[in-house]
Amino acid sequence: MAGPIDYYFDFSSPYGYLVCDDIDAFGAKHGREVVWRPFLLGTVFALTGQTPLVDQPIKGDYYKRDWERFSKLLGLPYQFPDPFPISTVAAARAFYWLWDQDPKSAKDLSRALFRAYFGENRNISSAEAVIEVAGEQGLDTKALAAALQDQAVKDRLRAENDAAIARGVFGSPICIVDGEMFWGADRLWQVKRWIEQGGW
Amino acid sequence: MAGPIDYYFDFSSPYGYLVCDDIDAFGAKHGREVVWRPFLLGTVFALTGQTPLVDQPIKGDYYKRDWERFSKLLGLPYQFPDPFPISTVAAARAFYWLWDQDPKSAKDLSRALFRAYFGENRNISSAEAVIEVAGEQGLDTKALAAALQDQAVKDRLRAENDAAIARGVFGSPICIVDGEMFWGADRLWQVKRWIEQGGW
Repeated sequence: MAGPIDYYFDFSSPYGYLVCDDIDAFGAKHGREVVWRPFLLGTVFALTGQTPLVDQPIKGDYYKRDWERFSKLLGLPYQFPDPFPISTVAAARAFYWLWDQDPKSAKDLSRALFRAYFGENRNISSAEAVIEVAGEQGLDTKALAAALQDQAVKDRLRAENDAAIARGVFGSPICIVDGEMFWGADRLWQVKRWIEQGGW
Repeated sequence: MAGPIDYYFDFSSPYGYLVCDDIDAFGAKHGREVVWRPFLLGTVFALTGQTPLVDQPIKGDYYKRDWERFSKLLGLPYQFPDPFPISTVAAARAFYWLWDQDPKSAKDLSRALFRAYFGENRNISSAEAVIEVAGEQGLDTKALAAALQDQAVKDRLRAENDAAIARGVFGSPICIVDGEMFWGADRLWQVKRWIEQGGW
């Protein structure tokens, strides 16, 4: 099997939500494993000087409309969540803890977290909220609660986040395949071409 | 014929360049006139607090790569121009002067200006440079030189630019069709769906 698609996203990113349902099928269709890599967009924004999208004058309203419209086109439940954006530290820690045991479950939990936040307007920023969603997925909530306090799990996310930044990841979603980076929920057609043609 | 597609762009916008060759064929295919509306992105950036894309830490390098890659995919000649970005006041004034006489010629001149800047690394910011490109297109350079000094032509661009800002235009390219705004060189597939389905 050829190299994986590294799929970087933040759980508070609407454009990440828009891709999360389809990215694995996309990878499978093109014979590529998809390695999910949640990171903390806020730490990147601090480096790039960006502000949250909805806080940007004039553009903010467009983004809100785009998320609503794009979700509807894809048939995904969506409402603009309040608060937005949120801290996704707990969600990302839960992800890596689970990923290291069972990647499929980690992806399922991710989709459930995304849907809780953007589809049901549930604030998933706290450890308690993440544990609640995990419980709904039939996961071991007691083990997860302990993991979220575990320094090793905290270090795991920190290392992933540092690696993402070192790799130049600056937005969500970003796919990296064969060393090539593609940013945005509307660029999978280019990722597809890149894979099929081996670049251009 | 149904309402037009308003196509907003700045002559210094790589993503505008990427769309300029295809937008009219796109409109014709969907039974829509395309009204080209160059504006001055710099005046919008002053309002939104944005900085030129290449000046953005970390993201700047991605943009440069994206423009090169995207152009190559479309088969468009491209090199990262120096200087970048540039003032496009003269180009936009020339456009509206010509548009009011002959829209087709104004579109042809626009494509030639885009190609001179992004395809041939010619700095098209000065009136002289715009006149030169216009001359290569067989246009009346003497009349254009006079027009670029004409207060009425200056006012024409100012009014267009103010109207664009009033309409919420904040980036390049932006298409507005049936009152709906779509931003980006990679969103024509959504414009197409919007037209075909009458929204969704």
